[in-house]
Amino acid sequence: MLNKISESIDKLYPETVERRRYLHQHPELSFKETETAKYIANFYETLGIPYETNVGGNGVVATLEGGKPGKKVALRADFDALPIDDEKDVPYKSTVPGVMHACGHDGHTSTLLTIAKALFEHQAELPGTVVFVHQHAEEQLPGGAKSIVESGILDDIDAVFGTHLQSLVPLGEIQTSKDVLMAGADAFELTIQGKGGHGASPHETKDALVIAANVVSQFQEIVSRRIDPLKTAVLTIGTFNSGNNFNIIADKAKLTGTVRHLDLDVQAKVIEEMERILTGVCLASDVTYELNYTKGYPPTKNHVQEAEIVLEAAKEVQGVETVKEVVPVMGGEDFSYYTIHKPGAFFFTGARKDDNLYPHHHPHFDFDERAMPIAAKTLVAAYLKYQEQA
Amino acid sequence: MLNKISESIDKLYPETVERRRYLHQHPELSFKETETAKYIANFYETLGIPYETNVGGNGVVATLEGGKPGKKVALRADFDALPIDDEKDVPYKSTVPGVMHACGHDGHTSTLLTIAKALFEHQAELPGTVVFVHQHAEEQLPGGAKSIVESGILDDIDAVFGTHLQSLVPLGEIQTSKDVLMAGADAFELTIQGKGGHGASPHETKDALVIAANVVSQFQEIVSRRIDPLKTAVLTIGTFNSGNNFNIIADKAKLTGTVRHLDLDVQAKVIEEMERILTGVCLASDVTYELNYTKGYPPTKNHVQEAEIVLEAAKEVQGVETVKEVVPVMGGEDFSYYTIHKPGAFFFTGARKDDNLYPHHHPHFDFDERAMPIAAKTLVAAYLKYQEQA
Amino acid sequence: MLNKISESIDKLYPETVERRRYLHQHPELSFKETETAKYIANFYETLGIPYETNVGGNGVVATLEGGKPGKKVALRADFDALPIDDEKDVPYKSTVPGVMHACGHDGHTSTLLTIAKALFEHQAELPGTVVFVHQHAEEQLPGGAKSIVESGILDDIDAVFGTHLQSLVPLGEIQTSKDVLMAGADAFELTIQGKGGHGASPHETKDALVIAANVVSQFQEIVSRRIDPLKTAVLTIGTFNSGNNFNIIADKAKLTGTVRHLDLDVQAKVIEEMERILTGVCLASDVTYELNYTKGYPPTKNHVQEAEIVLEAAKEVQGVETVKEVVPVMGGEDFSYYTIHKPGAFFFTGARKDDNLYPHHHPHFDFDERAMPIAAKTLVAAYLKYQEQA
Amino acid sequence: MLNKISESIDKLYPETVERRRYLHQHPELSFKETETAKYIANFYETLGIPYETNVGGNGVVATLEGGKPGKKVALRADFDALPIDDEKDVPYKSTVPGVMHACGHDGHTSTLLTIAKALFEHQAELPGTVVFVHQHAEEQLPGGAKSIVESGILDDIDAVFGTHLQSLVPLGEIQTSKDVLMAGADAFELTIQGKGGHGASPHETKDALVIAANVVSQFQEIVSRRIDPLKTAVLTIGTFNSGNNFNIIADKAKLTGTVRHLDLDVQAKVIEEMERILTGVCLASDVTYELNYTKGYPPTKNHVQEAEIVLEAAKEVQGVETVKEVVPVMGGEDFSYYTIHKPGAFFFTGARKDDNLYPHHHPHFDFDERAMPIAAKTLVAAYLKYQEQA
Repeated sequence: MLNKISESIDKLYPETVERRRYLHQHPELSFKETETAKYIANFYETLGIPYETNVGGNGVVATLEGGKPGKKVALRADFDALPIDDEKDVPYKSTVPGVMHACGHDGHTSTLLTIAKALFEHQAELPGTVVFVHQHAEEQLPGGAKSIVESGILDDIDAVFGTHLQSLVPLGEIQTSKDVLMAGADAFELTIQGKGGHGASPHETKDALVIAANVVSQFQEIVSRRIDPLKTAVLTIGTFNSGNNFNIIADKAKLTGTVRHLDLDVQAKVIEEMERILTGVCLASDVTYELNYTKGYPPTKNHVQEAEIVLEAAKEVQGVETVKEVVPVMGGEDFSYYTIHKPGAFFFTGARKDDNLYPHHHPHFDFDERAMPIAAKTLVAAYLKYQEQA
Repeated sequence: MLNKISESIDKLYPETVERRRYLHQHPELSFKETETAKYIANFYETLGIPYETNVGGNGVVATLEGGKPGKKVALRADFDALPIDDEKDVPYKSTVPGVMHACGHDGHTSTLLTIAKALFEHQAELPGTVVFVHQHAEEQLPGGAKSIVESGILDDIDAVFGTHLQSLVPLGEIQTSKDVLMAGADAFELTIQGKGGHGASPHETKDALVIAANVVSQFQEIVSRRIDPLKTAVLTIGTFNSGNNFNIIADKAKLTGTVRHLDLDVQAKVIEEMERILTGVCLASDVTYELNYTKGYPPTKNHVQEAEIVLEAAKEVQGVETVKEVVPVMGGEDFSYYTIHKPGAFFFTGARKDDNLYPHHHPHFDFDERAMPIAAKTLVAAYLKYQEQA
Repeated sequence: MLNKISESIDKLYPETVERRRYLHQHPELSFKETETAKYIANFYETLGIPYETNVGGNGVVATLEGGKPGKKVALRADFDALPIDDEKDVPYKSTVPGVMHACGHDGHTSTLLTIAKALFEHQAELPGTVVFVHQHAEEQLPGGAKSIVESGILDDIDAVFGTHLQSLVPLGEIQTSKDVLMAGADAFELTIQGKGGHGASPHETKDALVIAANVVSQFQEIVSRRIDPLKTAVLTIGTFNSGNNFNIIADKAKLTGTVRHLDLDVQAKVIEEMERILTGVCLASDVTYELNYTKGYPPTKNHVQEAEIVLEAAKEVQGVETVKEVVPVMGGEDFSYYTIHKPGAFFFTGARKDDNLYPHHHPHFDFDERAMPIAAKTLVAAYLKYQEQA
Repeated sequence: MLNKISESIDKLYPETVERRRYLHQHPELSFKETETAKYIANFYETLGIPYETNVGGNGVVATLEGGKPGKKVALRADFDALPIDDEKDVPYKSTVPGVMHACGHDGHTSTLLTIAKALFEHQAELPGTVVFVHQHAEEQLPGGAKSIVESGILDDIDAVFGTHLQSLVPLGEIQTSKDVLMAGADAFELTIQGKGGHGASPHETKDALVIAANVVSQFQEIVSRRIDPLKTAVLTIGTFNSGNNFNIIADKAKLTGTVRHLDLDVQAKVIEEMERILTGVCLASDVTYELNYTKGYPPTKNHVQEAEIVLEAAKEVQGVETVKEVVPVMGGEDFSYYTIHKPGAFFFTGARKDDNLYPHHHPHFDFDERAMPIAAKTLVAAYLKYQEQA
């Protein structure tokens, strides 16, 4: 069965590329991707696969019922772009100034459409049901995944799989984890409000700069002493700005930073301890603070069984040596909401283009389009394997 | 007048030495110096100078009215000893094991008795009134000075003078200040109560040792940022003890220390900031603390006019080159209570014995007895000069 | 095959208990366990299984060649006791004052002897070769494992398995890990040598207490900033002692602590950073330090395949629900040297005695003796399964 | 004598004001004040008092020999302006955009010219010699005082006096000190160069922000532990800027600050300890630093005898209640070079204009012109008194 579908996918490669390039030329920002949603809906309309639009926002969800009994499996692709100016010199460059598919979501979308078309060709022989989840707004909080899950449209699925093309991973390498694959990544802004004054009279001031330096030092103890050493937490202060003049004592210090974690309990503990330390340090100096803490997506934690299915599926598609279990990547992804809701697994598909080694979110970002059929086959193999094992 | 009295003092030198040595052999601890008080009372009894005993405790206060009008001037000497074993090898060594005049109070007392006897010889010609204040318990808080002042016996004096023999200052050098001569010296004990646990599981504990280290660091800001840079404060942590085992996280840390200041406002500020920092740091770590802060004697602050009188008196007695204005000495002295109550000045009388260079409170402490008549004459000269100028 | 051997093990239960109790009554300290070694040697002598004594010290290694071809598998038990006074009230209490089997090594030894006897009954049918490694000195650095490995006696084995009875794990529960099972645990002593002085004159001193507090604070950054957040490190300072008097500035501070890690690279990094921070902080204060760092045993890291064999073996012996994959325990174990040398896996065997819930190294430590046959069968099952799979 | 000269000064008040206003309208920046120098030279030329120009730069020094024997006394006024836009709404507002006499040097200059003219009227009766030192470039390092002293022109003077009009001190109040009147004020810029990186991977970076926070904390110990508590030092960090993005670890931190001291030994010690701490902290984190430390003027320390002369002179001019001994002001002044070279004293002359309460260096700065004759008389009285006493 996999072989037949793989052949279909291979045959569809030219149009997979064509679609991806069309999308690349017509990127839309998160929560504003209405034309892309129409493009997707039109695709299913043309094929004759039933679909719903405006799912949890701009989401589009299509459903293909196979001719044989089986489980209901969702495959997800995101389709929003980024507020970045495309600086690549390629024919399929973005036509929208200041907006660019700099994270591969065009590829995810084209890949999932190709899967839909390839599976549709074999509908009668397919076990169970496949749900094609085209998700809007992955790049911007609160993300599209949460509202799609909350719409209830996935309440009866049995499992969910998804992938991300990776521009710096060797072409075709499949990476996943039986545990957390992507971290939770939060942001915060902190202001310490003291009392300024003349540089020669510290006793008449409350020196916000020195107090903020204390906060930085004390924050180190959160990771070193207050989080289980067997768990992971990062608390980075990225910016520290205080004072306007060398001989004036600063009345204010502004700091920003990020917290990374693999576990919502750790996230909660870090926030609790940040507040505790800030309350204490500010009391110790008779000043006040304001902390604006923005929680990012939860960690993307795979389910063991579904991750094993991905590993086996990937080996079947490509052979053992291209499949790796990896430690968590520290960036966030809202696929996490699907695997909080249902069993599932996310994986990376290597898409390195050896003459264009730029990271995601870079104005020169691009990927090797040959990764799309690899991603497609691996998702299909996972869907099929899931039917056998579950 | 000064010349005549000086001659009397010189003639009394042998008995000044004899009395000092008797007292040296019969030291008594602070607040227990009853025999010494009797010895002093008996001296005035024999002379026929009126006196009161049990003033504010074991204090003895005698009053000599001169034959001429004038001001009422108090001269003070302390008479308690220390809980130290006398290790000197001299004929006049302490006869009481574990008790020793290791701070020169025997010399102060003998000096003041000599002054009394010398002045008594010239009573008719003396201007005003001289009050001989023999004070108990200078070495131990709360000290004898406070209760003597509170007894009211000094309410009608005009001024007060006193001196301290200094074993490390060259013989005969007179040192004083127009401002603070001796600092306030306080003591504190601090306990941080956290929650102990296994060395490998810091997240299940509240690590008192690390928190106490934070307290030490934060305390540095009191002096560096919170006290007027033109004022003086020292906050020293003398001991830090925490933990019993290298691989057990400590539940408790115990610290002791001292605060030195020249100014009761600074003292109050240091205490306020210590409490503020402790409250904050402990809140930041969810632990508790207990601070036992013992205020020592206030700073001994001379009055400008009386200090100038001492300086002039000293120059008259000995010549210009032996008189110095000095920065404050960081140790405490309860003479401070007298100058809070009334105008006055305290000074140091150099008493270095060149073959026995031990500091005060040392088991080998001793001083050059020739310093006693110098101290006596300077005090008398100050009393006389005060009559002229005030 | 496993069934037959398990039956033998069950039949040997009374003498397994008897031997364990004999050993419990006759404990010997690490590196001095000569009588225990003789007892073990005598056991093999009596059975007629060839053995070597004085392997790497007091170690005894016996070898049983099966009648069928196969791999050479080592099973290890340690046999030293601890310098603890046995405070239990049982008939088999230690007869040696101040020495006690408070860690279950008596049980390990008796279990391995029982395995030897049970396998010997079925020698003709056994595949491959079994090596019985009776190791001395697990409780004290540098441990017996290292010298046994260095003796070369294990150079030709294919795999090694071992277990530890756990007094606080439910009876019969088998715990292991496909990665690190037991941490590396190191110890250190640190002296900061400053320059003492009077509490009122900090500028004339180099305040070792304040400097050591800085070291404590700076050390927090090792875990928080300098170790990969996906790796584990603990740096605990267990004791901090500095100063003798509240008003004297300390010339010295003495600290002790422990480092825990799961990875020799992390250990090396922690030590490197400790030295770097100490060098810098001491230079910043113009003082010196001395760090005595004692490396404990390396982390005990299981090999994935052998760990999977243990998991399957344990399930076969007892059923699925008693088998757990666990996160690392933070204590050390010199079994690590075997799995550095050869493939292998270590596991815990639950031995909780519900009426005697004391931890290891406690004067009341004891375990449920019924854990011994469970441990024995699991080790045998692992040996057999290894023959099939490897 | 003083009375007669005072009368002359009073009569010259209108032209004193006129000259001041002319100068106020024609300010020149430090080291560029050539027209002002010509204006001054022309004044002496017209009077017929001998003078030298280009002394140590744009300095002008005139000498008036009295008809009677006596000492040689210098009186100093500075004449440069500031790079500030004059925002006052007065007829005598600056005519030069961006340049303003916002520190009263116009007043100092006019005052000294008036003194010269008044003394010239009484030349025959004057004791000794008066040297009128018109100094350029007080506002900008390295200042004009140093080069005037180095020119040798003041090598044979006996004493030097000067004053500063103070816009926030009550009109006519004279303030001085027998010790330091104005602090040393230094500036520094500090860059910590670490190694940036991704916010989730601190172990691959050298976090300049955290290290700079350590520096801030450690710097507190300089004042709290390393400077004599009886001396004054302030170390303020005025600005701290590090990092560009909340989730990127900063490669660099830039700090600026100021040091205030009353004593060149303290200055040297602070710098030494800053370098020591920076070297150590940076070594502890394997990063580098660059410290650009700019020494300001030395503290302006009055000589006791000359300060007493000022105090007496001021009392004579105005009466006791307007004369104050004050603690040091924390700003710098290059009058310090004169009193390092020769005996002398500097004092403040209150010039508060009650309807214009702006501090020095403010675009609305102004002073009550009636302060000028008060300053003039006090300087003259000091010169005369010096002749009597010295």
